[in-house]
Amino acid sequence: MKRNFKMVVSYDGTRYYGWEHQTELDMTIQGKLEAVLTKMTDASPEDPVKVIGAGRTDAGVHARAMTCNVLLDTQMSEDAIRQYMNRYLPDDISVNEVKQAADRFHARYNALGKTYRYTLWYGLSKPVFDRRYVYVLNEKPDVEKMREAAAYLTGEHDFKSFCGNSHMKKSTVRDVDTIRIETSGSYIRIYFHGSGFLQNMVRILTGTLLEAGYGRKKPEDMLSILEARDRRAAGPTAPPQGLCLMKVDY
Amino acid sequence: MKRNFKMVVSYDGTRYYGWEHQTELDMTIQGKLEAVLTKMTDASPEDPVKVIGAGRTDAGVHARAMTCNVLLDTQMSEDAIRQYMNRYLPDDISVNEVKQAADRFHARYNALGKTYRYTLWYGLSKPVFDRRYVYVLNEKPDVEKMREAAAYLTGEHDFKSFCGNSHMKKSTVRDVDTIRIETSGSYIRIYFHGSGFLQNMVRILTGTLLEAGYGRKKPEDMLSILEARDRRAAGPTAPPQGLCLMKVDY
Repeated sequence: MKRNFKMVVSYDGTRYYGWEHQTELDMTIQGKLEAVLTKMTDASPEDPVKVIGAGRTDAGVHARAMTCNVLLDTQMSEDAIRQYMNRYLPDDISVNEVKQAADRFHARYNALGKTYRYTLWYGLSKPVFDRRYVYVLNEKPDVEKMREAAAYLTGEHDFKSFCGNSHMKKSTVRDVDTIRIETSGSYIRIYFHGSGFLQNMVRILTGTLLEAGYGRKKPEDMLSILEARDRRAAGPTAPPQGLCLMKVDY
Repeated sequence: MKRNFKMVVSYDGTRYYGWEHQTELDMTIQGKLEAVLTKMTDASPEDPVKVIGAGRTDAGVHARAMTCNVLLDTQMSEDAIRQYMNRYLPDDISVNEVKQAADRFHARYNALGKTYRYTLWYGLSKPVFDRRYVYVLNEKPDVEKMREAAAYLTGEHDFKSFCGNSHMKKSTVRDVDTIRIETSGSYIRIYFHGSGFLQNMVRILTGTLLEAGYGRKKPEDMLSILEARDRRAAGPTAPPQGLCLMKVDY
């Protein structure tokens, strides 16, 4: 009789091709988790362990609290599972929490919201200890202009212009209830909260906010960018290493 | 006419064989700095650029503010030198400050004190984002016992038992005026301040404080360890990645 477990996982995405398991290429977070759990439960190749994530993260993107669920045929306790996983997973993946969940709990379908953080850095020196977790800017953006632009993007909109998947058939309407920009020393941190995000959406939002910060777009241009429903209207996709999935709400 | 410059440098020591330049092996911080400055000033092989550090750091040890000085035959401004160095140095070395100094300023002879920080980590998960900068413990130490032991070690003592160089001929008396232990979540941070430290001394002090934290030594055993003047009396040398040179006083 399999039990359903909810797990909260942190990872440094630098070395990985993203969250999602890819055939014959297991340098993915999902692939690493499934490999360890398959070994732990001695699962048969006909019925391998499947880890269901709250969402996908792109290659190079990090997570402080990705949530997933997995059906496991084991008598092990929650603590014993966490300990086993932390021992056999590489140093850049950590299991922070393992809890038995209701059978019907599904990490993706039941997710109510997500918080992402994008970290920008601008300074006269270099962020040697954080260099894998920030996007280093060569030019200082005007944060007030970025905040003005962010206000236009907050709320429920059709975010097709901010979608990295040009073949997206389903609705591109999403509700981003918060875009908050905080500064601290050389760091500019943008927090995004919403019920869901399209592929590359946070990175394209960040790249477009930076265009406003650099004066290459006006804050009010965000309206016409949304209206265009065309990826080419928005700014560039900010690089992956600045992005981190902070929390999934249930 | 050469000018003397004082520089403040940060580095992630993970990839390096320490601060000190070694012949035919330039994976050292000093070696990287000298290579970039030699190129910048087009110095002749007969009169290469020499960078004088406030002290040496071991292989794998980090610095947030190592201070050094260097005589340079250049008309470049302080800002231009910093910019040039940050462009050509690798991502894990940053020059935070360049200031012209008095001709007689010497980063080692004039150093009045140094602050080191050693970071320990104990938790049920793993420190994925800090894993190169902490020493992960498998057992939870008693921090109060460590503080009691630290009190015995604070002050002016002969630290021969805490010296990694068994051939040390000069005085092993040092004055460590502060050993402060702070805890925050899974982190235990030990701050050491003193006028100077022997080779490996902070790491051996940390390894010995941990012995007290694990109950394998009593806090008052620190007295007999100091008296022994024998490296074998103290605890093990804590690994390099937890150590960081935080500040040099002048």
